[in-house]
Amino acid sequence: MSVAYLNGSYLPLDEARISPLDRGFLFADGIYEVAAVIDGRLVDSASHLARLERSTAAIGIALPLTLAEIEAAQKELVARNTLGEGLVYLQITRGADTTRDFIAPTGLQPTLFMFVQAKSFSDMPAVRTGIAVATMPDQRWARRDIKSVGLLAQAMAKQAARDAGAQEAWMVEDGFVTEGASSTAFIVTDEGIITRPYSQSVLAGCTGAALATLAEESGLAVVRRPFTVAEALAAKEAFITSASTFCLSVVRIDGQPVGDGTPGPVATRLRTLYVDFARATAV
Amino acid sequence: MSVAYLNGSYLPLDEARISPLDRGFLFADGIYEVAAVIDGRLVDSASHLARLERSTAAIGIALPLTLAEIEAAQKELVARNTLGEGLVYLQITRGADTTRDFIAPTGLQPTLFMFVQAKSFSDMPAVRTGIAVATMPDQRWARRDIKSVGLLAQAMAKQAARDAGAQEAWMVEDGFVTEGASSTAFIVTDEGIITRPYSQSVLAGCTGAALATLAEESGLAVVRRPFTVAEALAAKEAFITSASTFCLSVVRIDGQPVGDGTPGPVATRLRTLYVDFARATAV
Repeated sequence: MSVAYLNGSYLPLDEARISPLDRGFLFADGIYEVAAVIDGRLVDSASHLARLERSTAAIGIALPLTLAEIEAAQKELVARNTLGEGLVYLQITRGADTTRDFIAPTGLQPTLFMFVQAKSFSDMPAVRTGIAVATMPDQRWARRDIKSVGLLAQAMAKQAARDAGAQEAWMVEDGFVTEGASSTAFIVTDEGIITRPYSQSVLAGCTGAALATLAEESGLAVVRRPFTVAEALAAKEAFITSASTFCLSVVRIDGQPVGDGTPGPVATRLRTLYVDFARATAV
Repeated sequence: MSVAYLNGSYLPLDEARISPLDRGFLFADGIYEVAAVIDGRLVDSASHLARLERSTAAIGIALPLTLAEIEAAQKELVARNTLGEGLVYLQITRGADTTRDFIAPTGLQPTLFMFVQAKSFSDMPAVRTGIAVATMPDQRWARRDIKSVGLLAQAMAKQAARDAGAQEAWMVEDGFVTEGASSTAFIVTDEGIITRPYSQSVLAGCTGAALATLAEESGLAVVRRPFTVAEALAAKEAFITSASTFCLSVVRIDGQPVGDGTPGPVATRLRTLYVDFARATAV
């Protein structure tokens, strides 16, 4: 039985309950984070916690615990679930009201919910096969830098990608790829590794940022500029990063092969570097 | 004690509980409707139910009840609360999963939640004073025709409007007003009543549609075209419509008066026509 955390208590996940007047349910008025667990420890935790603090501050939700307390609760949750490899999902909402009003009353107690998902990073078939992506119009709101739970556009894009035989959607706006529906998008060309710079148009990916640093340290150039779908199709390689996948080669875009249609050496090497980094720095 | 409806049961609102794995909470994967109640009966119910059916169909949620059964439950809820004037809030989500995945599993049982809010339409001070609106960049997603619970952009705009001393936000995109954060926007000029035509950029407002029909029947021209903030400031009158306000004059936009800065005759007359329509057709 999976153990969840809800507002200070540890309890069976299937017994966790919240009020339907929670503003997370009524207004998508909440923030989430997903952190990987490897060797029973949290990967790149400080980066995820810093982003959690930025996102909640951006919408004016006061954290109900300090970042250190949140990390301690995450560790406790991992321990209680004896989780070796997987994910810790965390969601903070503005809390449950006693009625419904777009204007939140002052003094609400934020809701903090966490649970874990087992997932093997060591044995992930998609590492060997690569993944296919399908491009989709980016229909999301203007503040994608805020990791809000307003994810319907992403869920719709993921479903449409699945229906098109792909495992991820690449969102396209004004001809340029913004990012994946739940990942950061990269291509590899003679310029180096190309990824979109941070702005309100994209989420600042924790895994992508760490991987870009590792790439630079290993002598690869990282070029932060937007790229088009045509550039991606003409690239030597393409790949995605996310906390839940680390780094996966993109071998097909809208059914057309990228490079020779198999995982390329750069993404493969960067994944290895990232896994080493994750193991070495997990807390 | 307010009585709510949750998945077939009537229960005290403060005892209603859902799983935090509900996709409405995790992904804003849900649809809502708000219907007015006057004389203990539902206002313009068929229009709201038709929109509910369109919205849920647009995101592929199967209604757990027929529209007739939903309306019957709404009536039962109104009766159990002995609600004379107010609102029935209804939310349908794709349901609670046993884990979290952007791709919804098949066979989820949708969640249906309803509760009521008492509100006086007969004695609403804003009818006499009018309201102030503040213009805000429209930061919402591309499918505003779908009445989804992904309302963080609207909540942020409403809060910003409140902070600016206004009661509603008018969302502006490419120089044109799209709509209010939770209402439809109208201006009155020599052309007649101007409001934005339906598209994916705006919600098809039930109250606005009924009021436009009433306006046309009373001999007023209704012109469906976008208008700018400058046009609104130069208009004879401006007003909003919504299920929760019916029709309210906008007397200030970004601190500047509209017309003489008091509720105008057209909006005042249209409100009266709408209240008469509401009473005459409520079910």
